[in-house]
Amino acid sequence: MKPCRIAILGSTGSIGLNTLKVVDQNPGRFRVVALTAYNNFELLEGQIKKYKPSHVAVGPEGLDHFKSSGIKGVKFYPVVDCAEIASLKEVDTVVLAMSGTGALMPFLAAVRAGKTVAPANKEALVIAGDLIMKEARKHQARIIPIDSEQSAIFQCLEGQRSKPVSVHLTASGGPLREVPSKDFKRMTPRDILRHPRWKMGPKITVDSATLMNKGFEVIEAKHLFNLGCDQIKVLVHPEAIIHSMVEFADGSLLAQLGVTDMRLPIQYALTYPDRLPTGLKDLDLAQLGSLNFEKPDLKRFPSLELAFEAGRLAGTMPAVLNAADEEVVEAFLKGKIGFLSIYKVVEKVFLRHRIVKNPSLKEILEADQWAREEAKKIMEPRLRC
Amino acid sequence: MKPCRIAILGSTGSIGLNTLKVVDQNPGRFRVVALTAYNNFELLEGQIKKYKPSHVAVGPEGLDHFKSSGIKGVKFYPVVDCAEIASLKEVDTVVLAMSGTGALMPFLAAVRAGKTVAPANKEALVIAGDLIMKEARKHQARIIPIDSEQSAIFQCLEGQRSKPVSVHLTASGGPLREVPSKDFKRMTPRDILRHPRWKMGPKITVDSATLMNKGFEVIEAKHLFNLGCDQIKVLVHPEAIIHSMVEFADGSLLAQLGVTDMRLPIQYALTYPDRLPTGLKDLDLAQLGSLNFEKPDLKRFPSLELAFEAGRLAGTMPAVLNAADEEVVEAFLKGKIGFLSIYKVVEKVFLRHRIVKNPSLKEILEADQWAREEAKKIMEPRLRC
Repeated sequence: MKPCRIAILGSTGSIGLNTLKVVDQNPGRFRVVALTAYNNFELLEGQIKKYKPSHVAVGPEGLDHFKSSGIKGVKFYPVVDCAEIASLKEVDTVVLAMSGTGALMPFLAAVRAGKTVAPANKEALVIAGDLIMKEARKHQARIIPIDSEQSAIFQCLEGQRSKPVSVHLTASGGPLREVPSKDFKRMTPRDILRHPRWKMGPKITVDSATLMNKGFEVIEAKHLFNLGCDQIKVLVHPEAIIHSMVEFADGSLLAQLGVTDMRLPIQYALTYPDRLPTGLKDLDLAQLGSLNFEKPDLKRFPSLELAFEAGRLAGTMPAVLNAADEEVVEAFLKGKIGFLSIYKVVEKVFLRHRIVKNPSLKEILEADQWAREEAKKIMEPRLRC
Repeated sequence: MKPCRIAILGSTGSIGLNTLKVVDQNPGRFRVVALTAYNNFELLEGQIKKYKPSHVAVGPEGLDHFKSSGIKGVKFYPVVDCAEIASLKEVDTVVLAMSGTGALMPFLAAVRAGKTVAPANKEALVIAGDLIMKEARKHQARIIPIDSEQSAIFQCLEGQRSKPVSVHLTASGGPLREVPSKDFKRMTPRDILRHPRWKMGPKITVDSATLMNKGFEVIEAKHLFNLGCDQIKVLVHPEAIIHSMVEFADGSLLAQLGVTDMRLPIQYALTYPDRLPTGLKDLDLAQLGSLNFEKPDLKRFPSLELAFEAGRLAGTMPAVLNAADEEVVEAFLKGKIGFLSIYKVVEKVFLRHRIVKNPSLKEILEADQWAREEAKKIMEPRLRC
């Protein structure tokens, strides 16, 4: 079997590093053709030496560094050229391991080039899911999600001849699940980041605290599995062992379970349709003892409902939600606004937005820009007082 | 679409009645061509009038009754001719809803005739799984199990391109799960039958108390899914919401979940590969709150280990285990032996048996007969003291 030639966009982040562990776990199965990273160019240099990619994109500082490094056999690109990397003819599978809206152009380029795309990135599908899925269908590009919830749904639906009537996205409940609502207003970035259920970046940890993260996954699932928002349910499941479920017309559910390690969905996406040993510990439900479930509390976590509504409204609204959330969470992390203001500001931007239906890429990017500015405007007076 | 023509063998028992409810739930989808029942001929008469089958097999008393009943358009058969019913050319799917070894000949006849067989019966596959599966493959007969655990595994594997490395059969744990071992010796049939976790016949309730029932399912799963016994795990899960799971090489598990109602797996088997509404309540995990898991305690329930061993030894041993258990449980239910003697007697028969490898049907039936006599012999002195 020829090795699968992969490009890892965002190779120095958590998903990128886990992707390289999967490569190590399966000698001969993969060839790393391209790597990209924004600024951790020292780590990237080690990866270049080990995996010998022929194409590397990196931020400005790294580009300067590598130009004088004397590394041979590698074509270096500025990081803005990730889309070019994603559509290289010598690439079979593109792992979208970078976070943020910067993944949008590479995602579109990859599907237009008919690649298999393994996205861990949420933002691209949230803001431009319709466009991406349309292009993927047109160019017969396969999308196998890496996000554990979406991977679970993908795995449950694999080969099933019946369409699901609904999917159940499980949610850990985030760091505030057991914190009384009355304490929410006092929550500082430190409080939130000190209690993440698993180690993640600060932005996603805050989104996990508001459940906005789960809301984004709702919009993502809508696109990936061609569902209506009302076919998507969210179920709080603190142990995060059931990674998600699908429900069929007869009331039967299929669930995908496993240890919580990103190497599992990454390897599944990269070796699909094969399943190979991961070297991870087996899931031992008897040792775990119990799995718990509860409804998400939409009163305490109104961001989730807002995301559902954005998904229903569609058009430019999900892009606006994503952009506003990004700005507002950044302000919270910098200590500029309080925790409860996150929802309030995002909701204001949401309410002020005039949706463009079936938007072009340009209209999506304009809406994104508008939402960021609007969010900043709303937060401005707060900064003063 | 032409209606699926079904024969229900054992139409007056619990599975038979639930199968007819599934028929009622899906008007026009099925035509009941044949019904059989051993002795509840009054209930059977009502079914004949409602579903108008053209073929009916019934026990001697019923046969006399129907001969003088003046019912027209029905061909009546003695119940020993169930195999003939199972292979009628006007039948598409045979529901094996009867319990006991009497299902063996109809099962074999049905697969030899290339029918789709939906077995709820355990005994036939336990005692002659190799023969049945060989004939099924030869005649391209499809077997879609109705037993909820086996149906779960079937559903999880449906369309998956990877073979499982193991399957996890869930077990409620039976009526003695929370009873201290020291009280086992005092357990009367009344104690056992008073505490079944769900309503089942007395024989299967006792088998559920010893976990022998789960052991039989292990042997059944071995045949249905072409597994080694060491690929089959048993997991105690008192809520019985996860009906069973399959595990793949990458450590990922798929589970099938649903409300505990036999109409779900029955309808799945009958409408496969379609999934249609069942009219049953949706599973609400949040309302349920938690699912619990523990290892089966093989010290307290050694019958489970004995069944695993019989499955590994194969040949005539599973038939011997099944026959001995049937005799011994009957003696327990009649108050002739104590609860702890069930295991002791079955184990003695097991140890005394000289296995015939790759047995013919005749050798299987001989081993069955031998085991029954041997069990009786072992129990004899106890009857005297």
